Amino acid sequence: MTDQWARSGLDLHLDLDRAHGLRTGLERALREAIRSGQLAPGQALPSSRVLARQLGIARGTVTQVYEQLTAEGHLTSRPRSGVRVAPRPRPSSAPALTPAAPFRTPAGGFDLRPGLPDLSMFPRRQWLAATRDVLKEIPDTAFAYGDPTGHATLRTTLAEYLGRSRGVVTTPEHIVVCAGYTHALRLISQALDGTIAFEDPTLQDYPALAERVGREVTRIPVDDDGLIAAALTGEAAAVLTPAHQFPLGVTLAPARRRELLDWARRTGAVVVEDDYDGEFRYDRQPVGALQGLAPEQVVYTGTVSKTIAPALRIAWIAAPTRLVPALRAALAYDEAYVNVIDQLILARLIGRGDLDRHLRRCRGRYRARRDHLGRAVTARLPGARLTGIAAGLHAVLHVPGATEAGLLDRLTRRGVVVDGLSRFYAEPRAAPPGVVIGYATPPQHAYAGAVNELLAALA
Amino acid sequence: MTDQWARSGLDLHLDLDRAHGLRTGLERALREAIRSGQLAPGQALPSSRVLARQLGIARGTVTQVYEQLTAEGHLTSRPRSGVRVAPRPRPSSAPALTPAAPFRTPAGGFDLRPGLPDLSMFPRRQWLAATRDVLKEIPDTAFAYGDPTGHATLRTTLAEYLGRSRGVVTTPEHIVVCAGYTHALRLISQALDGTIAFEDPTLQDYPALAERVGREVTRIPVDDDGLIAAALTGEAAAVLTPAHQFPLGVTLAPARRRELLDWARRTGAVVVEDDYDGEFRYDRQPVGALQGLAPEQVVYTGTVSKTIAPALRIAWIAAPTRLVPALRAALAYDEAYVNVIDQLILARLIGRGDLDRHLRRCRGRYRARRDHLGRAVTARLPGARLTGIAAGLHAVLHVPGATEAGLLDRLTRRGVVVDGLSRFYAEPRAAPPGVVIGYATPPQHAYAGAVNELLAALA
Repeated sequence: MTDQWARSGLDLHLDLDRAHGLRTGLERALREAIRSGQLAPGQALPSSRVLARQLGIARGTVTQVYEQLTAEGHLTSRPRSGVRVAPRPRPSSAPALTPAAPFRTPAGGFDLRPGLPDLSMFPRRQWLAATRDVLKEIPDTAFAYGDPTGHATLRTTLAEYLGRSRGVVTTPEHIVVCAGYTHALRLISQALDGTIAFEDPTLQDYPALAERVGREVTRIPVDDDGLIAAALTGEAAAVLTPAHQFPLGVTLAPARRRELLDWARRTGAVVVEDDYDGEFRYDRQPVGALQGLAPEQVVYTGTVSKTIAPALRIAWIAAPTRLVPALRAALAYDEAYVNVIDQLILARLIGRGDLDRHLRRCRGRYRARRDHLGRAVTARLPGARLTGIAAGLHAVLHVPGATEAGLLDRLTRRGVVVDGLSRFYAEPRAAPPGVVIGYATPPQHAYAGAVNELLAALA
Repeated sequence: MTDQWARSGLDLHLDLDRAHGLRTGLERALREAIRSGQLAPGQALPSSRVLARQLGIARGTVTQVYEQLTAEGHLTSRPRSGVRVAPRPRPSSAPALTPAAPFRTPAGGFDLRPGLPDLSMFPRRQWLAATRDVLKEIPDTAFAYGDPTGHATLRTTLAEYLGRSRGVVTTPEHIVVCAGYTHALRLISQALDGTIAFEDPTLQDYPALAERVGREVTRIPVDDDGLIAAALTGEAAAVLTPAHQFPLGVTLAPARRRELLDWARRTGAVVVEDDYDGEFRYDRQPVGALQGLAPEQVVYTGTVSKTIAPALRIAWIAAPTRLVPALRAALAYDEAYVNVIDQLILARLIGRGDLDRHLRRCRGRYRARRDHLGRAVTARLPGARLTGIAAGLHAVLHVPGATEAGLLDRLTRRGVVVDGLSRFYAEPRAAPPGVVIGYATPPQHAYAGAVNELLAALA
């Protein structure tokens, strides 16, 4: 049952629902009229006496409603101007969004920056099929707050998968599921006491992140054999990319692996193995994870960002036993970060071989792209050198006699985007001239064109 | 083309794949035999001379392979014992997992602890349908690293939805998508300078979290009108649950709303509005969010944990303009935490009305449960009082003449799990006697039985 309330000069119709009582009905009708803008800010309302008479209700009811809405801030009441709709608060305009790190988002057909897989290969069909199965089978209780270290099913699947594919020696209890490598590195940095060594060159964000959580940071140079382990001293940890150094692309040489693990054993430090693209090795069997040689000295980290897509925000840590309590403390006890449905989807993709099949397809495509790039450089840029090509999704192009600034300038003018090496060095002026080419970034149809433009610009 | 290599006393067959050269083939075969356990740790290998003769290959090749595998840590080489398979590293066993916060995970049919919705209502069909649509429409580029503040589509949808449903005044640029309220509170705590006030009682995890990121914390008492705003002094922020105080269930009274916002305006502090269950109000129109009255003084936070499920790990902040830069700094520039697919699924559920329909279903069910509980208490526990029932998913039961310990003891003996009030107080002994009853927690079929057991235990 509703009444129509109209007031001349206001042209307002209020639906007054009496089902929950007059007072509630009027309160609701006025609130809705204010919210919807039917009653504009500053608009005067009839006096309680007038409105009560118009509606045929007690004046006290109207007064109570005006008081309630005034208390809520919807109305203002001043001695001279009577009851009015309150000015509508507006937030001032927010500062423009800082764009996401530009090297991480594809910019178009000539984008050859490293850090992204070919996103057109995202396994949409398999993801949907796994979602269907998970939603069919997941018990209701799994929709509660989950285990902060990750769902037991995913941790069990990962322990098995990492052992099989990367030689990682671990158990489900040593694994922590994270919302991306950045999250993993933050947790590890918080779990460690003391200085953390990073490679030089590396992604600058990572030492910066460790500093943000209060850690001292050192930078250790990298040569053709990978991290110069002899330069490590009293650090509590060394973070590195042994399988395919980022960005140089070299593999940590066997002697260096030994040196590094000796250092860790001798000093009690841990090695943080960032195995960001360890699944992609083209010319011989993958080098197993360093962690497999010394599970109590190495914190292994992996991610789906290069194998499936960064947008999924899933990574993992396989930690030495002694670091597990500190990692759990850093997580805090209810700070689960990854949607349980997504965790179970990933477990299913791994468990039924979808991930392995996807990786084989990706490997084939990336190997072909790498070979194409290599042939094109040989044919069109005599004297140039492509390094770091044994694995991963990027290579470094060295062009003798050129400066990095000169190379980037020529590329920019043709609309080709790559990263100069110098941005990854603690001291950019000390960087060797060269550019980093992410050959997985463009969609397949744009790849040959992008390489063509790259070489046309540099030839 | 493969060879079979057998050695008496070792009973080992190696498939020697010559396709990539003898050296690579032998390396691969040995590595695989070690990894698979065919060659056990400690096992002696033939000398390079013997093996070379057996395989009909150059001794130098075998020596190189042994050296490589020794460098990798798969073999050991000692003067007297010759070449052996290296001991297989094993991680020591990890400490038992600390269970997730026990009050957050349903324990069975008689679990009446607060903090969870009825998980059997999870909209599986709608989630799957939205997944299908999102995977059909999402451009490949969206699979890259996403906007750390959240996907623009979800932020736009949330700004509109929060305005419509909760009276929140905001824009997509003021919104930050988080991986749950804990994540939101961490970011807010990091973005603030100074002391943070929390309600007393409250979930103890929240002030503990603020302390973990280095903030001082005060506790402000709550009475029947909600937070006693007059007790606030020089804090930089006050975190509270205005719509339905947790755990007491009271609503912040209009006079207190004014006092609180006056305090914020006068001192430059911010109010953090934890609107964890603001969607559930049963007896009259929802009280609008405090934020709508003072968008530049209030940091609004909401979550899907009570409306859909905690396992999804999605929450949001609608921040005052002046806090946006500090929040973005706390996020760090690439620390996106929520799967972009999930963000788009949620945007779609909101956009096509699925969430509203789901909320109506939930409201109906929870209102009926609350009414059932109220009737049962009146009928079977004369003198007892149920408070905080106007909204949300929990109520407080006061039983005159009883102690909390006594109540919990009687309940435990019948297998009924609830939370005592005292666990939420800074000084547990100062808590009034009472238990918190989460009437949304049990699945529907178990609810009446759980209430029956509850009252049988207390009668």
